[in-house]
Amino acid sequence: MIETYLTHLECGLTGKRYDADRLQNLSEAGKPLLARYDLARAARAVDRDALAHREETLWRYAELLPVRDTQSRISLGEGYTPLLRARALGREIGHDRLYIKDETGNPTGSFKARGLALAVSRAKELGARSVSVPSAGNAAGATAAYAARAGLPAHVFMPRDVPELFVHECRALGAEVRLVDGLIHDCGRVAAEEIARNAGRFDLSTLKEPYRLEGKKTLGYEVAEQMQWTLPDVAIYPTGGGTGLVGMWKAFDEMEALGWIDGKRPRMISVQSDGCAPIVRAFERGDEFAKPWEGARTIADGLRVPVAVGDFLILRAVRESGGCAVSVSDDAMREEVYRIGRTEGVFAAPEGGATLAALRRLKESGAIAPDESVVLFNTGSGIKYHHIID
Amino acid sequence: MIETYLTHLECGLTGKRYDADRLQNLSEAGKPLLARYDLARAARAVDRDALAHREETLWRYAELLPVRDTQSRISLGEGYTPLLRARALGREIGHDRLYIKDETGNPTGSFKARGLALAVSRAKELGARSVSVPSAGNAAGATAAYAARAGLPAHVFMPRDVPELFVHECRALGAEVRLVDGLIHDCGRVAAEEIARNAGRFDLSTLKEPYRLEGKKTLGYEVAEQMQWTLPDVAIYPTGGGTGLVGMWKAFDEMEALGWIDGKRPRMISVQSDGCAPIVRAFERGDEFAKPWEGARTIADGLRVPVAVGDFLILRAVRESGGCAVSVSDDAMREEVYRIGRTEGVFAAPEGGATLAALRRLKESGAIAPDESVVLFNTGSGIKYHHIID
Repeated sequence: MIETYLTHLECGLTGKRYDADRLQNLSEAGKPLLARYDLARAARAVDRDALAHREETLWRYAELLPVRDTQSRISLGEGYTPLLRARALGREIGHDRLYIKDETGNPTGSFKARGLALAVSRAKELGARSVSVPSAGNAAGATAAYAARAGLPAHVFMPRDVPELFVHECRALGAEVRLVDGLIHDCGRVAAEEIARNAGRFDLSTLKEPYRLEGKKTLGYEVAEQMQWTLPDVAIYPTGGGTGLVGMWKAFDEMEALGWIDGKRPRMISVQSDGCAPIVRAFERGDEFAKPWEGARTIADGLRVPVAVGDFLILRAVRESGGCAVSVSDDAMREEVYRIGRTEGVFAAPEGGATLAALRRLKESGAIAPDESVVLFNTGSGIKYHHIID
Repeated sequence: MIETYLTHLECGLTGKRYDADRLQNLSEAGKPLLARYDLARAARAVDRDALAHREETLWRYAELLPVRDTQSRISLGEGYTPLLRARALGREIGHDRLYIKDETGNPTGSFKARGLALAVSRAKELGARSVSVPSAGNAAGATAAYAARAGLPAHVFMPRDVPELFVHECRALGAEVRLVDGLIHDCGRVAAEEIARNAGRFDLSTLKEPYRLEGKKTLGYEVAEQMQWTLPDVAIYPTGGGTGLVGMWKAFDEMEALGWIDGKRPRMISVQSDGCAPIVRAFERGDEFAKPWEGARTIADGLRVPVAVGDFLILRAVRESGGCAVSVSDDAMREEVYRIGRTEGVFAAPEGGATLAALRRLKESGAIAPDESVVLFNTGSGIKYHHIID
């Protein structure tokens, strides 16, 4: 049995300490709880180079993950996705050291599998009797899958206009599906009302429990390991709830404390849609928190997130890294989905297309130099968004 | 550079020898060509236990794959998919040692990635200037993906009634899509007519070139390695063109010659749909070849294959193994897709559902005993068939 070095939880805003071994949602300040580890002990016990012989899933980083007992792992083979060198795409846009972290091969076809594998494993380990999640689509599918494998009933709440495919996926996986008028935060409200009436049902909303973040942070561990324990100059990440970006920044902190990487960090670029860009607006205004975006509209369902509870964590990481937040149009996303597909053979989600649109924009403005190494995060398969293709 | 032990090709019917290093389709007898290796030399050079430290893709078996130069590999991270222990499903149906070889995580979401990764890599290595494939859907998507990554134009031919999602996938990946009135063999005819008019365009039809089989055989290598170099008592495989079943049987021959497994083989169960069961009919009649099935109809597009050029190879493997061929209804497939999803968190394709329907039928008849180890092959993601879900 591999030992986790998990010690406690900490409020992301106030730093107040919480018990890691009971079910927890937000802190008393209403902010995300972050999992903390004894990194000094972990540094002595874990040799980064010995990881190479472990299974190619996110569980290879088990000492830095919160699950206590290996028997509690709910796994469908998530993580350790390919970091593809994008040579043909790079030639086309004049960028040599270009990579795509391709999340399409995860269970249920998106990066959501990472967070939900951890969150469901840990919820079950700590005694949850059922789980609940509001979602634009992909998180619902992942929740349904892991809850089914865990033997826990799942209740998923999606906007009424979600593509039918996501509804079918959740039903095939045995989840109870509720369609809600409005967007993801409206789904969150209805889900919360039902949780209040159902003892033992645990809320897995983005950053409203501590462990989805722990799953998402493995994106950062993997990129470092796949680049031989270095990091790229620039990481371009499509931002809805922002868990991946916040998670990677946390992973970089941890890996530096572990002595696995030096202090050189990528500039973190947060990409949103012109039709829903609360983080971009807050970044430009110099705000610590992001105001809700009114009338959110975009073809990238994962970016249609008008309110992010982790807004200050996203903005903090972007600023500390020397990065920026930019928005792109739906037309540009669609065009770049075709470009990635045609040149690299990856059918990217529109969110993945958004990262390429951002790269092209930032190359034009000179914010990214042609010789810098860049990783684009394609967060899911385009197949679930195939309706955007002619 | 890892050395392949590929030596030559051999007609699957007559045994006549052919050159492996030029582009080849069928033998002069009009039958599939099989790749042959110097297994005696490979046995001395490759230690099966050293494979554990290689990357978790099908390329870990490179010495037994046909690609000459590692630079020729066209890879998107295919293969080494999870072999999931299905405990909850096993409890529900009263079968303890039950496994699902889950192919949903492959690039483009199906087992077709295995064959096309190899076929496209080798076609490019041997000088093809473009590729062509008739397909029920999944092979077209995989061809489009690997051809794009290889920088080769792809021409895909699908039945006019194929779900729109497959058309969108191929277009997003830059392929030229042709919709044909009829089924996959009609697509094959139109594709062949166009190949005759276009020099340099290579035909990647199932078993009409030698290397898709080499990709599919890795299913057999992986199951053996994942079961610590033993094989299950029973393997249940949904059979359209049958490449996976034929490929696994070939892999078992090779591994036995390599000394990697002993002589104990699984009984191979070929599953088809009641609406298209040419192999089942030929098996029951004791025929060597299967007659074309008239009026093929099934929700499992991958099983809507009225004519298989490898029919005699499928039937031979099933018979040599002491297995059988059975057909199941579309209703049973759909019901079992729900059962797999609800119990194990895997959204299976109807073809995957068919394997469970077959297992339940064969348990009832006593052909499979409750204590036998069984592997079900879920050949692709249910997401592409989500329209079968209510």
